[in-house]
Amino acid sequence: MSEIGVGIIGTGFMGKAHAFAYRAAPGFFPGGLRPVLEMVADVNEAAAHEAAAQFGFRRAVKDWRELVADPAIGIVSITTPNRLHREIALAAAAAGKHIHCEKPLAPSADEAREMMEAAEAAGVVTQAGFNYVKNPMLKLAREMIEAGELGDILTFRGVHAEDYMADPAAPWSWRLDPAGGAGVVADLGSHIIGMARFLLGPIMELNADLETAIRQRPVSPGATETRAVEVDDVARLHVRFARGCGGSIEASWVTTGQKMQLGFEVSGTRGALVFSQDRLSELHYYRTDADRRHVGFTRIEAGPQHEPYGRFCVAPGHQLGFNDLKTIEVAEFLEAVAGGERRGPDFREAWEIQKVVDAAVRSSRERRWLSLL
Amino acid sequence: MSEIGVGIIGTGFMGKAHAFAYRAAPGFFPGGLRPVLEMVADVNEAAAHEAAAQFGFRRAVKDWRELVADPAIGIVSITTPNRLHREIALAAAAAGKHIHCEKPLAPSADEAREMMEAAEAAGVVTQAGFNYVKNPMLKLAREMIEAGELGDILTFRGVHAEDYMADPAAPWSWRLDPAGGAGVVADLGSHIIGMARFLLGPIMELNADLETAIRQRPVSPGATETRAVEVDDVARLHVRFARGCGGSIEASWVTTGQKMQLGFEVSGTRGALVFSQDRLSELHYYRTDADRRHVGFTRIEAGPQHEPYGRFCVAPGHQLGFNDLKTIEVAEFLEAVAGGERRGPDFREAWEIQKVVDAAVRSSRERRWLSLL
Amino acid sequence: MSEIGVGIIGTGFMGKAHAFAYRAAPGFFPGGLRPVLEMVADVNEAAAHEAAAQFGFRRAVKDWRELVADPAIGIVSITTPNRLHREIALAAAAAGKHIHCEKPLAPSADEAREMMEAAEAAGVVTQAGFNYVKNPMLKLAREMIEAGELGDILTFRGVHAEDYMADPAAPWSWRLDPAGGAGVVADLGSHIIGMARFLLGPIMELNADLETAIRQRPVSPGATETRAVEVDDVARLHVRFARGCGGSIEASWVTTGQKMQLGFEVSGTRGALVFSQDRLSELHYYRTDADRRHVGFTRIEAGPQHEPYGRFCVAPGHQLGFNDLKTIEVAEFLEAVAGGERRGPDFREAWEIQKVVDAAVRSSRERRWLSLL
Amino acid sequence: MSEIGVGIIGTGFMGKAHAFAYRAAPGFFPGGLRPVLEMVADVNEAAAHEAAAQFGFRRAVKDWRELVADPAIGIVSITTPNRLHREIALAAAAAGKHIHCEKPLAPSADEAREMMEAAEAAGVVTQAGFNYVKNPMLKLAREMIEAGELGDILTFRGVHAEDYMADPAAPWSWRLDPAGGAGVVADLGSHIIGMARFLLGPIMELNADLETAIRQRPVSPGATETRAVEVDDVARLHVRFARGCGGSIEASWVTTGQKMQLGFEVSGTRGALVFSQDRLSELHYYRTDADRRHVGFTRIEAGPQHEPYGRFCVAPGHQLGFNDLKTIEVAEFLEAVAGGERRGPDFREAWEIQKVVDAAVRSSRERRWLSLL
Repeated sequence: MSEIGVGIIGTGFMGKAHAFAYRAAPGFFPGGLRPVLEMVADVNEAAAHEAAAQFGFRRAVKDWRELVADPAIGIVSITTPNRLHREIALAAAAAGKHIHCEKPLAPSADEAREMMEAAEAAGVVTQAGFNYVKNPMLKLAREMIEAGELGDILTFRGVHAEDYMADPAAPWSWRLDPAGGAGVVADLGSHIIGMARFLLGPIMELNADLETAIRQRPVSPGATETRAVEVDDVARLHVRFARGCGGSIEASWVTTGQKMQLGFEVSGTRGALVFSQDRLSELHYYRTDADRRHVGFTRIEAGPQHEPYGRFCVAPGHQLGFNDLKTIEVAEFLEAVAGGERRGPDFREAWEIQKVVDAAVRSSRERRWLSLL
Repeated sequence: MSEIGVGIIGTGFMGKAHAFAYRAAPGFFPGGLRPVLEMVADVNEAAAHEAAAQFGFRRAVKDWRELVADPAIGIVSITTPNRLHREIALAAAAAGKHIHCEKPLAPSADEAREMMEAAEAAGVVTQAGFNYVKNPMLKLAREMIEAGELGDILTFRGVHAEDYMADPAAPWSWRLDPAGGAGVVADLGSHIIGMARFLLGPIMELNADLETAIRQRPVSPGATETRAVEVDDVARLHVRFARGCGGSIEASWVTTGQKMQLGFEVSGTRGALVFSQDRLSELHYYRTDADRRHVGFTRIEAGPQHEPYGRFCVAPGHQLGFNDLKTIEVAEFLEAVAGGERRGPDFREAWEIQKVVDAAVRSSRERRWLSLL
Repeated sequence: MSEIGVGIIGTGFMGKAHAFAYRAAPGFFPGGLRPVLEMVADVNEAAAHEAAAQFGFRRAVKDWRELVADPAIGIVSITTPNRLHREIALAAAAAGKHIHCEKPLAPSADEAREMMEAAEAAGVVTQAGFNYVKNPMLKLAREMIEAGELGDILTFRGVHAEDYMADPAAPWSWRLDPAGGAGVVADLGSHIIGMARFLLGPIMELNADLETAIRQRPVSPGATETRAVEVDDVARLHVRFARGCGGSIEASWVTTGQKMQLGFEVSGTRGALVFSQDRLSELHYYRTDADRRHVGFTRIEAGPQHEPYGRFCVAPGHQLGFNDLKTIEVAEFLEAVAGGERRGPDFREAWEIQKVVDAAVRSSRERRWLSLL
Repeated sequence: MSEIGVGIIGTGFMGKAHAFAYRAAPGFFPGGLRPVLEMVADVNEAAAHEAAAQFGFRRAVKDWRELVADPAIGIVSITTPNRLHREIALAAAAAGKHIHCEKPLAPSADEAREMMEAAEAAGVVTQAGFNYVKNPMLKLAREMIEAGELGDILTFRGVHAEDYMADPAAPWSWRLDPAGGAGVVADLGSHIIGMARFLLGPIMELNADLETAIRQRPVSPGATETRAVEVDDVARLHVRFARGCGGSIEASWVTTGQKMQLGFEVSGTRGALVFSQDRLSELHYYRTDADRRHVGFTRIEAGPQHEPYGRFCVAPGHQLGFNDLKTIEVAEFLEAVAGGERRGPDFREAWEIQKVVDAAVRSSRERRWLSLL
């Protein structure tokens, strides 16, 4: 079992989630490439040192360039705000490092493509942080759809709604800065767009309605002075998948009361699946060939029969959590880096997702359907 | 307590539901106008006689004109296929009868307007059969919204999805005949559009995506010969309400596994409500001013505190059913006929709903936003 | 189709529910014996007259004896407080009337047996008002158990908990009078005991724990003077069924927040069923022979395939309510009176239930297991 | 920040869960005592070496005595079958090591007391592995009860039911060996008994019904030869808490379809709480002082406001999993070892739980109530 040095850039919530996941992965997925927490970088140098002590990184630095250049680093993990992703990723690719980057990959599809092309040219393995599709229940859903267990798909409904900006008193913040790209359609929309693609494949055409429900926000907590919000806080898409079926996708950060309403309903001629991330261990399955007296949605509970659940818990009902999904993401990335299957989502897929985001912005502005072909 | 003669036209499922409701109403709502089951009409005369015996109608006739003309009839209840509604309603209005008509009111908004204008000119009371809004939980929802308990509305999501046409082997039928108007956007869409209007008021603008997911169907059960389906079986709408907020509305009769997914999620700055007709006695309410430790959706169960539940059941938990909602519809109509409050939905409201349906059809065909003003 | 005169004694909530059900039954169940609302009796004569007007009874009387003796009456329906059931039922049996009596049948098993013996000696048909087992979902559950679809039964858990006496300020009332028999074990316990018997057959042995959680109550609403509560408000039973399996049964009227937690979980070697009356249109079914990837509880929704749902609603998802269950009870009683199948629960079954109630009281007092053989 | 050497005995599922938790704890709970994975012991020496490589233990040994005696070890973590707990714990206490031991602590209360007394005499800190009470939702529940938010407690219902032995073809195993103590009442019952005590305090009196629903099992998988099962597979208890209220507790490993039905319903004069471990991030709360129109159970979702959720996830909805609860258990134990608050459950509490288990066995055998005072 060989080792690989990991360098994480950023020590915010996602930086810590990555550190945890790289530490946890070899325990649950023994036998593969063993990650070593080699270095952590943060512009706030004290934060870097604190994180190093907390998670056992060997070194802490202020400048991410130092980390990227270090020969002991094999994997660069990028958890900074997304407008910084591009520069770091290009440097990492140039240095021949494998790259693990949080989502959304970049503020625009053009930047995402540049990152993707650089990584592919450099021959490094990439991973984008769409951890929710790492859920064993999502893998089961995809397998069932691919195996034809739902028959021909008739319609799809996807949503990622939360409420963390539903309070008009929530102040203006970097998420609302148009320089960082679109609003919720990028932030949460990328998750549900990615999930839709994971399940059903490419989106061919869309017609989007992006709205800013709360148009002014305090410049800071409690301030009376306000600042205009220029990005979307609700995004609604009508879509057509390349496979032929239609659907709807919604993203919102003003859906009061919803904390993690990331889910879908997919209907086919032979069955249907319903899922919501706020009960992430459950997948609801309807099959049309059931005995008429017994027909209904079955609440499948995740268990050891749904890989890789059994690596974490001995029996169904015990349940995975958010950090376990991140650990699966890391373990699969390590497997790809070691030359195994590349399950992604990689930068190419993240670029495809970003193209949908960009098209949604343009479609809404032009108030018309757009083709993605 | 005075009596009024009721004549019901049609003896199919809705005809029977009306007969039941007119029989049941005075028991639950004593003290008002007392309906007498005077006459039932059906082109199938045997069916008319059978229904008369079953429900205690005094007379059965073949020709609805006879019923409409009869001086003992004060209320004409129309439960025929919707392409016949107009002619009957015009005759009833001309005869000065109060009119109770099933939904959708007509195959087009123009016909609906003609019916509405005739009834208003005649000064008769009208009622359209949108029974789901008669649910005490819906009344509670509207009251809460009107009282500002949700604050400013931020976004709305409405759906009416069922699966009764999700099987590609389900044969062509009158519902698929374009002569009867649109497909699911009229059949089920009118329910959720009506519910959206009931809760939030007029829709100002929309962009619709009507789709035919199953494009060929057997000409009859088991037939190998097929016939093209020309009406929509999924309809997805982006909408703007006149009050300022946006939302989405979906109607589908090919959503596998769903039997009565008629519901909504409405989010405001102070709270949110979630409802689904398949658990019709529950309304889920989130309030932002709750103690942080206890915040969450509250599952309100219908009880005697939610009028008129207490007329049917002595305590919460006992639950109303579909036929009880129809009974409330009838009781409220009788109250209006007796000169009391006109709670509707009346023909004017049904016309407004039909205008949204027609606009959805046109918007989808023209692939653009349409104004309803 | 012949007619039968119905006389209802009592005009409280259950009296009205009976009146409604007798009126509604022939519409939903045509072709059988047709009930005529002949007479209503109430010691409060004004209430009797009001109920007569409300539901269309031909006559109203003060004295139930007059009703029982009347030759136009074929069915006597008893909805008085249960300490009056015996005297009325004996008179009705003596007069050769069929008897429909609310539950619990009597304050004691001895009285219930006397009623049962009198009715059987008189050859009249009897019906006890355990309406919850009339739910199509309950019939499905019983059929599945009888057909062996759950395999050998391993364990049972039954509960009927509500909260209508959970407030210590709720005053003393007739329900708390020991002269009327036991407390909640009779009032609600009889429902879940009856349901357990309906599903699994006779209870052979039990060990009960009856408790009075709230021991003093105001003598009247708002009073400071209190009165001791001498009957149980929580009852917990360990039971053994004659078929060999064990289980638990609980009844409570102090389970805060629960409005109709009347349900069961029954587990067998091949499957399991879970039900709760507060979602009465759903039955949850687990089958052990499902594909491992898809195993889980299926939420069966009541539909036309579950008789007699289709008599009330055209499609699944529309849902029955409390009064519909009462209507099924009446329709089945009328069928039995007409010489058809006697589905019960009849007085013999109600006596069996009351024996369990009485044994629970005695077991708790003696703090030991008791045999019911 | 000082370090402490950890030695884990056993490499089965719980051994790995402990190793994971000790690795993960300092990342989520920085600033405390830092655990070092010093040594792992297993009679299967190859398994010990494999676990060492997987989790990064410095050393692997075959003999637990070597581990216990090692001066680098400060904490001994015992994850062997429970009949071996006593000998190891006594040795660890004698060696002055802090002890973390899986549940149930011992096959009998006498052995548990011996372990507890030895540890207390040695002045070492102890922790028993009842991880489910480490859930932030359980802490919230206890705080609410202690703060009087539910008022006086009226009744309690607790259950821990699973189905891993519900298949009669599941073979005889060490769990069924009476030498290891009782059956499910010890295995799962200890969890729900511990949870009941965590919430409501000591149980004063009980009356138990222990049953063996499946009385013969194959001696090995697929064998036709069977062996008698001598321990309970369903246990039902009526209990009285010292605080005055009554309740029921059930444990079962033959409840078909249930994977982790570990939950409770606790009712008080001012409110109620309902919880089930299979949706571990939710606590359902009913408060009697809510507006009548809005009253109902609120589904509280775990979030950063519920300590220590925020150490794992940045926002509500992300969710903790089984291994996170184990990590909290370890972190709190480390805090106690470092001289901070001792939150337990410690060996004394585990002994109290075992006394309830033993009393249940005896009560059932003697078929009578037993006092625990």
